[in-house]
This record gives sequence, C-alpha cells and structure tokens, in this order.
Amino acid sequence: MDSIDKLMRSPVSFLADAGPDEDIAISSRIRLARNLAGRPFPDAASDEVLHEICDKVGAAASESGALGCPGCFSFVPELMGELDREILFERRLASRDFLNRKCGTRLLVRSDESSSIMVNEEDHLRMQTLKPGFQLKAVWEAINQLDDELSNRLEYAFDEKLGYLTSCPTNVGTGMRASVMLHLPGLVLSGLIGATIQGVNKLNLAVRGISGEGSDNRGNLFQISNQSTLGQSEMQIIDRLESVIVQIIEHEKLSRRKLLERDKYGFFDWVGRSYGILRYSYKLTGEEALNALSGLRTGVDLHMFTKVNVRMVNELFRSIAPAHLQKQAGRELSPVERDITRATLCREKLAGR
Amino acid sequence: MDSIDKLMRSPVSFLADAGPDEDIAISSRIRLARNLAGRPFPDAASDEVLHEICDKVGAAASESGALGCPGCFSFVPELMGELDREILFERRLASRDFLNRKCGTRLLVRSDESSSIMVNEEDHLRMQTLKPGFQLKAVWEAINQLDDELSNRLEYAFDEKLGYLTSCPTNVGTGMRASVMLHLPGLVLSGLIGATIQGVNKLNLAVRGISGEGSDNRGNLFQISNQSTLGQSEMQIIDRLESVIVQIIEHEKLSRRKLLERDKYGFFDWVGRSYGILRYSYKLTGEEALNALSGLRTGVDLHMFTKVNVRMVNELFRSIAPAHLQKQAGRELSPVERDITRATLCREKLAGR
Repeated sequence: MDSIDKLMRSPVSFLADAGPDEDIAISSRIRLARNLAGRPFPDAASDEVLHEICDKVGAAASESGALGCPGCFSFVPELMGELDREILFERRLASRDFLNRKCGTRLLVRSDESSSIMVNEEDHLRMQTLKPGFQLKAVWEAINQLDDELSNRLEYAFDEKLGYLTSCPTNVGTGMRASVMLHLPGLVLSGLIGATIQGVNKLNLAVRGISGEGSDNRGNLFQISNQSTLGQSEMQIIDRLESVIVQIIEHEKLSRRKLLERDKYGFFDWVGRSYGILRYSYKLTGEEALNALSGLRTGVDLHMFTKVNVRMVNELFRSIAPAHLQKQAGRELSPVERDITRATLCREKLAGR
Repeated sequence: MDSIDKLMRSPVSFLADAGPDEDIAISSRIRLARNLAGRPFPDAASDEVLHEICDKVGAAASESGALGCPGCFSFVPELMGELDREILFERRLASRDFLNRKCGTRLLVRSDESSSIMVNEEDHLRMQTLKPGFQLKAVWEAINQLDDELSNRLEYAFDEKLGYLTSCPTNVGTGMRASVMLHLPGLVLSGLIGATIQGVNKLNLAVRGISGEGSDNRGNLFQISNQSTLGQSEMQIIDRLESVIVQIIEHEKLSRRKLLERDKYGFFDWVGRSYGILRYSYKLTGEEALNALSGLRTGVDLHMFTKVNVRMVNELFRSIAPAHLQKQAGRELSPVERDITRATLCREKLAGR
C-alpha cells in the first residue's frame, strides 16, 4: 500500500498547469462507470469476488501501463485510517460512499492525480480523468484511451442495445458523467445564480457545490454535469454540456463587467477584504476561507495582485481542507485549532513564506 | 480671519508627540470657564457686548503673548462655511453649540493646537489645553499659566465664596473640566466596560464617547472627566480623577493580558483583521474605520506591526473624519464617496504612499 504522504508530496498536474478559460473554469472532469461481465455488482458480490475484481483490475492497469502503473499509487481504503481516507476525498480521488466500504476496495491513482480508478465503488470500476480549465474534449480523449487500455484486458458487461451495464440504472448506457467546475462570483454577487441554476436544471444538467452537495455554494464554486447517460453518444453529451458551459462563462463575464461598471469600488472592496482576511487573520473557518479565496481568485483575474497567481490560490484551496490541515500538522486538530492552523497557512503563504 | 487650510497644514503637537501611558491614554485635556466681570453671560448679551468681549479677549491674548499670539490662529466661526466650521469641531477645538452661534464668536488657537479659547460659547471664555498621553498635572500647569496671563489683563467675574461665576451653575467654582481620553479595547472585548462605566459614574465622574456623546463607544475610546466643579480645589479634582484613571489603565492592561492568555489567536485575529480592512478595503464607513483603527492601535501596542506607529494611527484617526475628508478632496462628498475616499486614504497611508 502506498502512503498518503507520498501522494501529498507528489506534484499535481491539475493544480499547476494553466487550462483554457481558467479564470472561470477551474477544471474539467469525466468519469466512466464500468463493470466486469459475469460478476455481480459490488453490492451483491461476496468478499471473495470483490478481491478477485481488485486483483483483475490491478493486473490490467499494471500490464497495460494505464495510469502510468506500476508507477501509480495503489491504496486499500478499508485498511487506511480515517484521516488518510479523508485526504483522498478532499483531493477528489474517491467518494465518501467508496471510502466507507468495509471490504474489497482499491484505489489506483496516476502519480500526477490526473487519472484514477475506484475499484468496487457502486460499480466494479469508476475511472476518472481531470484537467485544469475548460477542456472536456481533451479529458474525453484521455479517459477514452485509459478505458481502451483496460478494455483490452478486461471483459466489460455490455449490452448491444443498452450499452454499458451499471449497478444503478441512471448510469446505464455510456456510464459517463462529464462535469466542469466553474467559479461564478459575478453571477452570485449580482443575484443571478438562482436563475442560472434553474435554467441549467431545465436542460437536464445537474448543478452541485464543491463537495458534491446540491445546495452548497461555498467559494462561489459550481459543478455542472450531465444527468442522463442513455440514448446519446459520449460526444453528443459532451457537445451539449460544452455549449451550455460556454454560455454560463459568457454570463459570468458579463456579470463581472456590469458589477465593475455599476459599483467598481464595491467589487474591489470585496476582493480587497478577501485578501486582507487571508493575509492577516488568525482564525479562519473553512467557509470563510473558501469565500475569501473566491475573492482572491477574482482579484487575480482582475490583475489586482502582483504576487499572487492562480496556482497559489488552487494550492491554498486544497491545503485548507480539514484533513489536509491535520495531516500537515501531524495530528488531529479541534475545530478551533483547525481555524488557527488554516489562518496561519494562508497568512504565511500570502506573505511568501 | 485665518484660513482653515493653514491650520490643517500646521503641525499638531498633540498628534506627533509621545505622552505618558500613550498606549492606553490618548490625551489629557483641561478646560476652564471664565466670564468677564460686569458683563451679561453670552446668552443674555447684546451683539454689541458680544463683539466688545471678543475684542477684549483678543487684545488680552495678543498683548500677553498667550497662545503664542499674535502668531496664533483667530477664527470668526459665524463668517465661516459649514465645512470649515465642522473641521474645527473634528479637531476638538470648538463645540457644536459654539459653532452654531450666529453672532459675536471668536476662536483663538495656538498654532500647534495645544491650547485654544472659544470666546462667547456658553461663557465669555472657554479655554482648553491638550497634551498627548496621561499628564493632567502638566496640562494643569500649562492652562493655569494661560489663565494667569489672561487674568492680568481681564477682570474675571469671581465670588470669594463661590469661586468663578459661570453661565451654567454646574460650572461654578473652579470652572474646570479635566478629562482623559482612554483607549479601552481590552475592557470592551472582555465585556467589562459596562461595569467599569457604572463604577466611574458612581464616583461622580462622567464617561463619554469620542464625539462627546454618552453612549458612543466607537473606536473603543472613552473620555473620563470630573462632573463637579464646586467645593474642591483644582488640584483636589485632578488628584481624584488621576487616581481613578490610574485604576482604569491597570484594569485595561489586565484585561489585555487575560485576553492574550485565554484566547491569544482571537485577540490577534481582531488586530490582524483590523489592519487587513484598513490596508485593503475600498469602501469604509466612519464607524468601521474607527473600530479598525482601535484594532490597529492595539496591534501597535503589541508591537505586531513594524511599519505602523502611534503617530500614524493618530493622524489617520483625525483625517478620516467626514469634514477632513471633504476638505482634503476639495469638495462636498456624498456618504458613499466619503466611504471610498476614506478607504483610499487608509490604504495609501498604510501602504506607505
């Protein structure tokens, strides 16, 4: 089993690289659900079968060189401590459902964290690929290649008429969920986010907050994804999602322009105070930090700060999460200790220390 | 008539100099009420008499060299514009009552603003002397000398039994009000200020906010002064006031120590955020600015900032007042414009520009 510490020290391509439209689109992600033919879905499978599936997927990844294996990370979540499991969640490599399973799980992760596979989540395989900015097609090419490499060595449960078979009927067909994480402070500040979400929902696309929950808009971050997986090809789904996201990005840009026209100082004030809080506070809750990082990121987009770049914001964003703070401190922290540690981290990072 | 602009450009000793206990005591002030013998009090006097009194006091000041006259400032408030009058109020050189009088007022001010005389406020003369920090005895010596210089040339209304006669009976006797402006964030933050004020009131001393109003505690600033002027000598009144203020200063120091012991990061957080707001906001109301300046001053006391000193805080404190902002801008400003101008001033001052 690889160590979480090694993972945390390893460079993360998604955070470091610049992507298209990175001022508004944080990242693009696609995940595919796959199951092995002739094997019960994880919820119905015996421990023996679950372990067999782990071994098969691990071998396929290793032999094919997918995920850069054998140089990839391989975790057995059920053998890991709670804090280490939470790190995987905070890094968006694993779902809480997956991490709570008691037996027969495996997580394979490319060393730069751009691709990963959960083995025996709801389906035998849940693979994902992540890239910075707005580039779903490039993400699709990468995950399609990963899927091809694995499918040469694994026999998937596939129906000529239905497509890929999955544990939950909502994933049958392509088994694909494509999503883009958007930073939408302009729409939030001008009170247009509600109407935007309603409009997106009407197009049968889902809008979620950063932690995957529906009502969570901390940090003004919103994840837009397809809901249906059946009856359309992958490229059709991606095209449709892309065209909606292009529009949302335009709306966000327009909102920011209008805010700057109507109340430049009010907008600057929010950005400036966000920086001030991150740079000088000594106690910082997670929610306040996320909202301040949203202001900071907006200021970076407006070229208001010479010493802060998007990469720093992305790294702070990740490192202020509770498990990351505790792992960094080397021990469990009380909520108050976390707020103090979070503030210290932000202060020092922005002071250039 | 001297110009307000010249006054504003002239160095102010009270802001620049360091005084005893200046971390908690901002300034010490004494004012004396005096009236000329054989003349009705201003409220009962004709315009002719009021002008005669102005001339007499002006001549006495000029001939005696008190206030550094003829090199002192001489203002005729009823001939000044509203903004210029408000500047005199914000600089604590004149009361609103005085500035609202329609006829026969005169304001004489030493060029460093350490001493001044309102002619024809409620009494014919209201002279004041101000020094930085906690030094009532030195203030007393200075104002006593000023009073002596004037009394050589003016015949005061004086009764052997009652002492100095004044328009309002509450000032009869010494005609003296001595006060110290204290910065008490420790007592406010630890919730002890209410009990402190109650205790002080029971000793027949008054507690007021910075603008002289009772319930105003903006900036955590409190002015403690004697209420009674009769039946005690000036030195007895000052001794008694001093002994109470020594105790309040001790309580404040203890409160700060306890806050640092019990919740160091909470205390630092308040200070840090105060600085962050002043350094990076783009819209700042007067009240928020005063409270943030209180945090900044506390941080200076704690040696948390290397580039900020008490003098800068004092100067900011004065220059963010509405009339000063507008005078600096050279025109009337709407409330929103004031908030923007105030934030700009604080940002630039703290950025060292």
